[in-house]
Amino acid sequence: MANQLSGLDQIFSALADPTRRAIVMRLCAGEASVGELADPFEMALPSFMKHIHVLETSGLVQSEKSGRVRTCRLSPDALVGAEDWFQQQRATWEARLDRFEAYVMKLKKEKEGAAAKRPSRASKRKGAK
Amino acid sequence: MANQLSGLDQIFSALADPTRRAIVMRLCAGEASVGELADPFEMALPSFMKHIHVLETSGLVQSEKSGRVRTCRLSPDALVGAEDWFQQQRATWEARLDRFEAYVMKLKKEKEGAAAKRPSRASKRKGAK
Repeated sequence: MANQLSGLDQIFSALADPTRRAIVMRLCAGEASVGELADPFEMALPSFMKHIHVLETSGLVQSEKSGRVRTCRLSPDALVGAEDWFQQQRATWEARLDRFEAYVMKLKKEKEGAAAKRPSRASKRKGAK
Repeated sequence: MANQLSGLDQIFSALADPTRRAIVMRLCAGEASVGELADPFEMALPSFMKHIHVLETSGLVQSEKSGRVRTCRLSPDALVGAEDWFQQQRATWEARLDRFEAYVMKLKKEKEGAAAKRPSRASKRKGAK
């Protein structure tokens, strides 16, 4: 559990940066070299490599060097793990809404039940005749 | 778009901490006072309030003070926005896998087609008779 939490710390921290999110988005479409990934950004290579390093440390990205080219690919498990966290929260939230809806429906039925038992104005007038 | 990205920066940064994730998880089950939220943590109140402030700044949590009690509640839109980001990435990733599968199937059919055109060893032997 501690490891999982620590993993989520690193994954969310890695994704809290637009450059790193853009790299992940690019890698979802397929592997790419560091040069290709860096191309859209006006950034010095050492700064860009720091982003790659953060993504690798978080487990979101893996890279491999062949000759002079370092190729990066996504590790989808880390992405799925983070998405799972959101789904768990949504499930809790939706269960709460369901309970709330059931409670409101119960109140509504009780109110309708009480109104049915209460004599209407018309029947009160009839009784008065 | 810039605002959305900046929003995701703040949301992911807020969620990169186990205390803040635990607060969000608790609030998914229903609103709570700062005192109730702080109870499970061995933390001084000012430090805890800093976490609440980060969550409020990110848009994940709203709070309201009534008398001496500050009540916090979840803003599910922020959570849904972050979950959407993951779903978009998964869609890109799965589309890539689908293309890859289609490519592999095409190669397989081409190979089978070529094998069907090529005379088998048995028919070669027949021809040789």
